[in-house]
Amino acid sequence: MTSTHAPHWVIDMTLSAPSLGDNTADADRLASALKKALDVDTVHMDLNLLRQLPDQLRQWNYRLRAVVFKDIAGNGILVHLAAADSSQVCYGLAVDLGTTRVVLRLVDLETGDHHGEVVFDNPQISVGPDVLARIHHVENKGGLAQLNQLIIDGLNAQLDQLCKAGDISPQQIHLVAIAGNTAMTHLLLGLNPRWIIREPYIPVVNQPGIMKSRDLGIEVHPDARAMVFPNVGSYFGGDLIAGMLYCDMDQREDTAILVDVGTNAEVVLGNRHWMMACAGAAGPALEGGVSRMGTTAGPGVIDRITIDPKSLHFDIHTIADQPARGICGSGVIDLAAALFRSAMIDIRGKLLPERCGERFSMRNGLGHLTIVPADQSGTGLDLCITQADLDSLIRSKAAMYTILETITGTVGMQQSDLETFFVAGTFGAYIDPKSAITIGMIPDLALDCYQSLGNSSLGGTTRVLTDPGCVERVRHIRDSITYLELNVNQDFMNRFSAAKFLPHTDTRRFPSVQVPGNGSATNPP
Amino acid sequence: MTSTHAPHWVIDMTLSAPSLGDNTADADRLASALKKALDVDTVHMDLNLLRQLPDQLRQWNYRLRAVVFKDIAGNGILVHLAAADSSQVCYGLAVDLGTTRVVLRLVDLETGDHHGEVVFDNPQISVGPDVLARIHHVENKGGLAQLNQLIIDGLNAQLDQLCKAGDISPQQIHLVAIAGNTAMTHLLLGLNPRWIIREPYIPVVNQPGIMKSRDLGIEVHPDARAMVFPNVGSYFGGDLIAGMLYCDMDQREDTAILVDVGTNAEVVLGNRHWMMACAGAAGPALEGGVSRMGTTAGPGVIDRITIDPKSLHFDIHTIADQPARGICGSGVIDLAAALFRSAMIDIRGKLLPERCGERFSMRNGLGHLTIVPADQSGTGLDLCITQADLDSLIRSKAAMYTILETITGTVGMQQSDLETFFVAGTFGAYIDPKSAITIGMIPDLALDCYQSLGNSSLGGTTRVLTDPGCVERVRHIRDSITYLELNVNQDFMNRFSAAKFLPHTDTRRFPSVQVPGNGSATNPP
Repeated sequence: MTSTHAPHWVIDMTLSAPSLGDNTADADRLASALKKALDVDTVHMDLNLLRQLPDQLRQWNYRLRAVVFKDIAGNGILVHLAAADSSQVCYGLAVDLGTTRVVLRLVDLETGDHHGEVVFDNPQISVGPDVLARIHHVENKGGLAQLNQLIIDGLNAQLDQLCKAGDISPQQIHLVAIAGNTAMTHLLLGLNPRWIIREPYIPVVNQPGIMKSRDLGIEVHPDARAMVFPNVGSYFGGDLIAGMLYCDMDQREDTAILVDVGTNAEVVLGNRHWMMACAGAAGPALEGGVSRMGTTAGPGVIDRITIDPKSLHFDIHTIADQPARGICGSGVIDLAAALFRSAMIDIRGKLLPERCGERFSMRNGLGHLTIVPADQSGTGLDLCITQADLDSLIRSKAAMYTILETITGTVGMQQSDLETFFVAGTFGAYIDPKSAITIGMIPDLALDCYQSLGNSSLGGTTRVLTDPGCVERVRHIRDSITYLELNVNQDFMNRFSAAKFLPHTDTRRFPSVQVPGNGSATNPP
Repeated sequence: MTSTHAPHWVIDMTLSAPSLGDNTADADRLASALKKALDVDTVHMDLNLLRQLPDQLRQWNYRLRAVVFKDIAGNGILVHLAAADSSQVCYGLAVDLGTTRVVLRLVDLETGDHHGEVVFDNPQISVGPDVLARIHHVENKGGLAQLNQLIIDGLNAQLDQLCKAGDISPQQIHLVAIAGNTAMTHLLLGLNPRWIIREPYIPVVNQPGIMKSRDLGIEVHPDARAMVFPNVGSYFGGDLIAGMLYCDMDQREDTAILVDVGTNAEVVLGNRHWMMACAGAAGPALEGGVSRMGTTAGPGVIDRITIDPKSLHFDIHTIADQPARGICGSGVIDLAAALFRSAMIDIRGKLLPERCGERFSMRNGLGHLTIVPADQSGTGLDLCITQADLDSLIRSKAAMYTILETITGTVGMQQSDLETFFVAGTFGAYIDPKSAITIGMIPDLALDCYQSLGNSSLGGTTRVLTDPGCVERVRHIRDSITYLELNVNQDFMNRFSAAKFLPHTDTRRFPSVQVPGNGSATNPP
């Protein structure tokens, strides 16, 4: 891990010209220089690169620019050659392959500069909205090929647009780095994911390694290589490994925690010496729990809400300041925290009708709280949150807290020992840590411990394109992770039950949270 | 070199079935077993193999047959998968890629049995008979592509015939091993050989390594891999390395010498500790020397000849006992030795008209010796050898002897120290060591020191197909060879001059050779 690396994947070099005293073959001459630059034992060169090599070397007077890469065995790969003074920029393509959304980013391989980004819905949504639906679709004849074609075609079409917008040619893209969850990775590779969701939950492959982009069908330079981030297992995918790379967890002396709430809640705890991970698909108690909060943000969606504890006035912020049409995960957390602070819900998360006043109603036997009345909403209907939504939120936050408690407990740490708490993804970008602490979803750390990583999966893939040391680090991270199977046993369920109160049955864990009312939280029914 | 190896490239194995306690991915499960069997750190699997893997493993109940290979970096490669009880034999294709002739051999990868062989003229002969002519042809537009296509098409056509004759499908061929000289290797790979023959004599590549057969255009199984034997340099090709492998030079405790006379005379001397090589294209003094003797053998070509020293009766043997049409290299050596023993030529190789009698004639100012008169020959013409032919032979044999003397001298050995003298190729198969000793072409060792290797290039490629340890050995041999540049300096020319007598100016070096006449050989003019 401490070896010196070339500064980036584009290497300008001048080879010594051959002579009677040094009659090394052209390829060996180049390989020798590349081995030194990359600190590797072998450098692979494709036949079609070799075919052009003798003329190129002599035409360029042995001054050249090489785009290189490494495979996971630590061997170098020559990907592209150009004259040293070529004005053509060499690009890499970073891909965050989400179940819901896909992000492409063009990266200048030399400077690391970003040259455009595009976000689009994963076209596989047309077949199924989530991982499970898509995996089931594979049972249909041609289903796997269809899902594979959807993402590859979608990616190529969006890439084409992105390139046109940036006035570059897809032929200038020589490296691709892709991270997604295990199922999305399988569908991209055309691998059957059916055993991922069936006991004992077996992926086809955990380390796809480096391949030719054209073998994947990605329309970039025909010699380009693609690195597909490895999985730890069926429920811990390459997107998380990219996130760990992005936050440098493998290089930190202090222990940090990384939480990514997407389709599942995934948690990694670690430092340069050890890393432990677990994922939230941990049995019936959690199913549909954490995952349900990730409502897609969009114009008119409530993302911030405060309630004046005295006047009970709702101060609502919507995305793009449009009339309210819905509420996203961060909005729900804000709302729950505000309802709790103003004593409109009790420590069990139950709506208190007297306190809620005319915002409260019973509809179909279910308590409703009107957030925005019909005459002010963007839909013409009352925008409500139901008791069921709040119950679901309570389960979600309890699940999250219990997972955090379990993983820190497993390594003998107190949650209060954590100094750095990374929150990844859309969830991390929008969530107000203060609200999440108020409802007891995350530990009561100083607010500056919380760092939003943004799209850490995209960040990690970008890093691989610009830092040659990262290929080894990705392998090292994957191999170093201890995956903690969440045993949903009595002990876990006890902790889960204790966490189903606001902020927790043990309020001493949340000294910053003022429990309103009679403080009965320390003494739950 | 001492690591244990799988017994062959076809491995039957039973994997443990996955369970909740062992939820390794399918590919990792297989890779882990293959790594153990091959004693490697990584095993590469192509995407198209991965795509079939989950269904296959379950269908076969985790019992399978894997065809594997290794790359030169020592990584494993999965090439093919079948059910463990599959009745389909897996084959390898060994290719001796000669300038003049190409030999294909089908090998059962499991048993090592040979399943047919075909010998055919290198179709590039239509463009140019020798290496030089073909390299010059590359200067013509499309010349390289044409030469490449000729050999690939020819190889595929002959392979198709060979497969049909053996009732197997080319799809059953999973491994290919190819050895040829540096120029032929370049043309096969579609690499421009123009710099091989131009100072400072630079090949495009010395270690082509392992590639997909289909990237070469060879029509076998699409996932098949091809190993192209590495070169040491422009004048020391993979065919010689294959020969060194075949005679186990790299594993012998005693020092052996390997001589291959093809287009050039190539000599390797060594043992398990060191190997030294030189090639005979060593400057103007040797050009057109050794190489000219390799007249193609065929029906009616004289390959054995003796002369009764008393009656001067010629006892002639022709290939297939047909009327004589020509004389091949081994025949010329036999003839020269017989002429010398019967005092029809002197120690300088000059025809002695009185002793030759009516077989001698002067034509166009050049001495001729009639071997077979017109009325007995297969051509209706006198079959003659001229003084110029004999002079050329003397230069050839002197060159060979001088090279042998130089290479042994370089390592501080006497030629008499040699215990094993391998002679490769057609030359080795036909030559009579006694005759070659008589004319002083090779050292005066006990006849049982001389071993004919036959087609050692084909032998070496066959070995790679059946012995997994050989890929590493080939790399080791290549990297271990010290290439001795033959400096044609005054010292070399002095030795060369001394060797231009029969058997040598210093007859003490050839105690077994009786010098006829007055023994003037010890005192040349």
